[in-house]
Amino acid sequence: MSSIFGTLFRVSTWGESHGGGVGCVIDGCPARLPITTEEIQVELDRRRPGQSDIVTPRQEEDKCRILSGVFQGKTLGTPILVAVDNKDARPSAYTEMETMFRPSHADYTYQTKYGIRNWEGGGRSSARETIGRVAAGVVAAKVVRTLHPSYEVVAWVKSIHDLSSEVDPATVTVSQVDATPVRCPDPKVASAMIDRIKEVRSKGDSVGGVIECVIRGLPPGLGEPVFDRLEADLAKAMMSLPATKGFEIGSGFSGTTLTGSQHNDAFVIEGGKVHTATNRSGGVQGGISNGEPVLFRIAFKPTATIAKVQQTVTVEGEAAELAARGRHDACVLPRAVPMVEAMAHLVICDHLLRQTGQNVLP
Amino acid sequence: MSSIFGTLFRVSTWGESHGGGVGCVIDGCPARLPITTEEIQVELDRRRPGQSDIVTPRQEEDKCRILSGVFQGKTLGTPILVAVDNKDARPSAYTEMETMFRPSHADYTYQTKYGIRNWEGGGRSSARETIGRVAAGVVAAKVVRTLHPSYEVVAWVKSIHDLSSEVDPATVTVSQVDATPVRCPDPKVASAMIDRIKEVRSKGDSVGGVIECVIRGLPPGLGEPVFDRLEADLAKAMMSLPATKGFEIGSGFSGTTLTGSQHNDAFVIEGGKVHTATNRSGGVQGGISNGEPVLFRIAFKPTATIAKVQQTVTVEGEAAELAARGRHDACVLPRAVPMVEAMAHLVICDHLLRQTGQNVLP
Amino acid sequence: MSSIFGTLFRVSTWGESHGGGVGCVIDGCPARLPITTEEIQVELDRRRPGQSDIVTPRQEEDKCRILSGVFQGKTLGTPILVAVDNKDARPSAYTEMETMFRPSHADYTYQTKYGIRNWEGGGRSSARETIGRVAAGVVAAKVVRTLHPSYEVVAWVKSIHDLSSEVDPATVTVSQVDATPVRCPDPKVASAMIDRIKEVRSKGDSVGGVIECVIRGLPPGLGEPVFDRLEADLAKAMMSLPATKGFEIGSGFSGTTLTGSQHNDAFVIEGGKVHTATNRSGGVQGGISNGEPVLFRIAFKPTATIAKVQQTVTVEGEAAELAARGRHDACVLPRAVPMVEAMAHLVICDHLLRQTGQNVLP
Amino acid sequence: MSSIFGTLFRVSTWGESHGGGVGCVIDGCPARLPITTEEIQVELDRRRPGQSDIVTPRQEEDKCRILSGVFQGKTLGTPILVAVDNKDARPSAYTEMETMFRPSHADYTYQTKYGIRNWEGGGRSSARETIGRVAAGVVAAKVVRTLHPSYEVVAWVKSIHDLSSEVDPATVTVSQVDATPVRCPDPKVASAMIDRIKEVRSKGDSVGGVIECVIRGLPPGLGEPVFDRLEADLAKAMMSLPATKGFEIGSGFSGTTLTGSQHNDAFVIEGGKVHTATNRSGGVQGGISNGEPVLFRIAFKPTATIAKVQQTVTVEGEAAELAARGRHDACVLPRAVPMVEAMAHLVICDHLLRQTGQNVLP
Repeated sequence: MSSIFGTLFRVSTWGESHGGGVGCVIDGCPARLPITTEEIQVELDRRRPGQSDIVTPRQEEDKCRILSGVFQGKTLGTPILVAVDNKDARPSAYTEMETMFRPSHADYTYQTKYGIRNWEGGGRSSARETIGRVAAGVVAAKVVRTLHPSYEVVAWVKSIHDLSSEVDPATVTVSQVDATPVRCPDPKVASAMIDRIKEVRSKGDSVGGVIECVIRGLPPGLGEPVFDRLEADLAKAMMSLPATKGFEIGSGFSGTTLTGSQHNDAFVIEGGKVHTATNRSGGVQGGISNGEPVLFRIAFKPTATIAKVQQTVTVEGEAAELAARGRHDACVLPRAVPMVEAMAHLVICDHLLRQTGQNVLP
Repeated sequence: MSSIFGTLFRVSTWGESHGGGVGCVIDGCPARLPITTEEIQVELDRRRPGQSDIVTPRQEEDKCRILSGVFQGKTLGTPILVAVDNKDARPSAYTEMETMFRPSHADYTYQTKYGIRNWEGGGRSSARETIGRVAAGVVAAKVVRTLHPSYEVVAWVKSIHDLSSEVDPATVTVSQVDATPVRCPDPKVASAMIDRIKEVRSKGDSVGGVIECVIRGLPPGLGEPVFDRLEADLAKAMMSLPATKGFEIGSGFSGTTLTGSQHNDAFVIEGGKVHTATNRSGGVQGGISNGEPVLFRIAFKPTATIAKVQQTVTVEGEAAELAARGRHDACVLPRAVPMVEAMAHLVICDHLLRQTGQNVLP
Repeated sequence: MSSIFGTLFRVSTWGESHGGGVGCVIDGCPARLPITTEEIQVELDRRRPGQSDIVTPRQEEDKCRILSGVFQGKTLGTPILVAVDNKDARPSAYTEMETMFRPSHADYTYQTKYGIRNWEGGGRSSARETIGRVAAGVVAAKVVRTLHPSYEVVAWVKSIHDLSSEVDPATVTVSQVDATPVRCPDPKVASAMIDRIKEVRSKGDSVGGVIECVIRGLPPGLGEPVFDRLEADLAKAMMSLPATKGFEIGSGFSGTTLTGSQHNDAFVIEGGKVHTATNRSGGVQGGISNGEPVLFRIAFKPTATIAKVQQTVTVEGEAAELAARGRHDACVLPRAVPMVEAMAHLVICDHLLRQTGQNVLP
Repeated sequence: MSSIFGTLFRVSTWGESHGGGVGCVIDGCPARLPITTEEIQVELDRRRPGQSDIVTPRQEEDKCRILSGVFQGKTLGTPILVAVDNKDARPSAYTEMETMFRPSHADYTYQTKYGIRNWEGGGRSSARETIGRVAAGVVAAKVVRTLHPSYEVVAWVKSIHDLSSEVDPATVTVSQVDATPVRCPDPKVASAMIDRIKEVRSKGDSVGGVIECVIRGLPPGLGEPVFDRLEADLAKAMMSLPATKGFEIGSGFSGTTLTGSQHNDAFVIEGGKVHTATNRSGGVQGGISNGEPVLFRIAFKPTATIAKVQQTVTVEGEAAELAARGRHDACVLPRAVPMVEAMAHLVICDHLLRQTGQNVLP
């Protein structure tokens, strides 16, 4: 089990969906950063269950407490513990999970790997685990923004099922994203997406989709070749989120059908600075940010836990049928938007600190 | 700069394309593994330049030497240094790189990050850096195979430009892959791919494509949730290779258009063991291998360095035109196949050692 | 700030002396270990303040809660959060610390490093931080003992001020150590030590001393040359405890006055096994355990915070006098005994897991 | 086997005493540092065998080559490989080591841990491994000195056997240390030490001693509580050197006989800056440098390999007698002086980069 992420700005998450609580420890946060639980709560509220009628109705306020590392409103440079209680756990809805494996869920692999699992809910593989990431992401974002005021990360739902939107990464804002509960800033498509989610949910089914994310205002020079390339660390960060199946940056998979002369981003001088005329690189070249917006997409599969009857096996190896109860998202993407942003902040903040630490010579 | 990969089985690569040489140090390799330079050479020969008429004609034998960590043909448990000399370097072909940035290459970002760069060739961002990875991959693979004899990794060129092949991941073999110089085990498509590469090269252009890779014979239980999920570490490993723009596992991006009931892999009992009826999960659930084949794809962009004239800027910020000389691959994918396999071996070997170390209790 | 210790069995401590609480996250604990808060409480009670009349009278029950990672009494293989509240904090006793630096304490260096510090108590440099270590040590010890039942770690107070005891490391037990509140298993010397502590305390002064520790039942083969030698990691672990000034293993500093022929431990066969006739090596050779008892000593300086008037400076750089109030140990050694044992457990457990992970080949 | 040291400035050493060579890879060295093989050679010459008539006569020039990471005399920010060939290896002098374990050497523990060992010399436990450390130390020192020009580390032989010197840490220089081959800057004692080494050597025996080391010109604020305290990382660094048995900083073990009021370092203002009137802390408080000289001592045991006949056992478990041949130092301390300095540089440089990376906020 490895629940620690980062080299200098290190986040350690803890907690199961049905246990004492969930949260994180942030180790290596720079000192003297003003931070409040209210700032963290804003993002926790964006990911919490029960926030709209298209997400799981589990009622969790997800109110966070800071138990260490902050003194008189500022970080001490010491570990910051953020904790959120589990309040609306209902293990009774999971009794069949004790003996059966949910198809495409983590039940079987956890059982096989650990020889034990907390079957009262999703355990460690629950999306509740991401509370610690989102909380830490708020702190990371503020560190970066303090040094680079124009820094911002905006993620949105690009597609759900076969419904796809067109969004301008150069201008899209968080308030546009949050204007609808589905977090797609294209209003017409958003409306169709909401209908689609309700429709599949009514059938006991679920849908997936693609989240797109842009990092703007990032200085050039971040990313540590060769293994800790910026896109490699972003890929790992995003693929560590539950339900992810793919990551692409810039031109991604579709760029493979271009020739080099079509694909290359010509360098130009704009306003006295080096820029690229296009951005098929997605803001990263040779593993290092080039100052252009970093643009990437993440594929999320349809939620594994569904009410429809499915074929599965029991812990004892008997064939069985399972119709999941419990409260689940029929589509994880709306709530995954703040998770994606949080992971981006964690990667960027850590790389900013690393680059500062290694670029010390005059 | 971070050139170390892995937690227990740790590989550190070193070297620039035009310098004293390239190679790796393997730290944490289990003791008593029989290993020879000949075994390593097999894979180095699969990635070396000059191996066919569709790859760069740079003449490098890439003969490797082992300077430490092996005694009387067996690993000592101590660091293994593998070194390969640079012999056919021609810095004279790169003189214009001293003052100009190649579009979509690493020249500009290295200059910006480090304030200095080895412009005599690709420097650290050269594909020569992967020699160390391929060498270490041979050692990693042999460790895993010693413990799991049916373990094997096969990668192949799935598509180049708009030419796409269909290959059966369950049965494809390395000898089928290596039957053509383009490493696509679908002979008809392979032939078209070879023609396409020659065609774009004759125009001073380049092409990209997709590599697919399967890991067979992997035991269940590998992968360390939540941050070091197997797919997250595979994504990082692959996205750390030069020219990569995307990674997907199992159903990947196309799986986002299915519903949960269509996408979920039902559990079944086959031969007394738990299996899944389908494998849209790609062999990984909840970040942990489930015993099915691990199947993933990587997008490689078209080679950035092309002979065609391109618009760029100089180090001094003046607009300029660049027509690259030097010897370059018009398509990196044939030589990237052993790199992908090597990175898969490094990830799997490290996770196997970690799981063994953490699963100690009866 | 780096509050994470270990490679596979990783402990992250958090908390200040005057804040929401203190504790730890254990990441990488093997699954299926039976563990209860009661077992942890035993060791927390050995280190808690107020346990006798020779330690600080701060009243803290130090009752621990486990918030994650344990299910139905067994570890899940997921992060284990252990939390202890701060209950008897009295920041009013520290008001002068806001403006003055305690001589030989961490006030000045924390202020200089971080530009901020929690002056309401010892902050992060308080001995309360070690609660997380002691809790994690209990878990680590149980992992090791499950695999090596004869494994045990016993530490004791060897000397205080100029009072020194003679204790047989081969036979000394925890109950002998705990027989007196000063934790010196030599009753006569213990009695003199208690008198000495009371005497210096009555004068507003403090004393230091030496703790000796033996690890018995350790298998050979633990320790990872060259940088993670067992004695190097033990040295780091012990020197990371508050108030430590020295570490020596086996013959230590006094062994430097012997010749090689006097110092070397001859190998002999006893009971069919390789042993050493003497143990000046202290159980470690070449950085690796040799199966003999590991024996080491740690120097603890006299407590820095004393009631006597001392010369110091203010935050503004003015000369000042300080007579500390607050509740402090006049001698930290009795309470440091379980801390030393805990750090030994953390080192041994991590090395046991590492060796298991790296020694996988037949 | 863990041969990597450091968090941002990371050194990985490789090589056995009798193999292709030895050296290091430096990963994370800041870019643009001017460095030459000549600068590195100066320190390698201080540690090389055959440098005087009181060290091992093995003839190794230890000429180093830089194979990567340096371009036109400056670091690229990429991994720096430094290699030294093994030239004067004489495995024939070690044939009995194939079947016998040298008392108090690493033969037995390596065999037990790895099930294999390079018996043709000291293998990985040879002092030749430290060549990589010394080379990396030169680079690390230059990084620190570029930013803090008054930074310097001076180590010296404080005692050998029962011969002890008095040296002023505030003023001692490297040239004073190097004035005699024994590296004790107290000429009279140095002379006696040289005689003593020759005397024990003539008897087929060996001696140990204590090295003292001072770090001057270090800024305050280095060290990362709680586990990576500066003294903890120095302790680990020094205890990772061959033949070390103890480490103490500042008042060390002798400080345990003082009271707090005697031991505490009063703060005073000198020249407008905060200083301490005394330096029993050894330049570190709360794990963080306070700007005073860092002063520490390391105990080195007498060399294990001696010509005198010793009792031992064979690999098969038979009692045996061993009189070592080969060429060995009768006292390792003169050659250990540059090793101690190198390890100090590695610790300080890494902590300087870490503090820079974490102290980014205004």
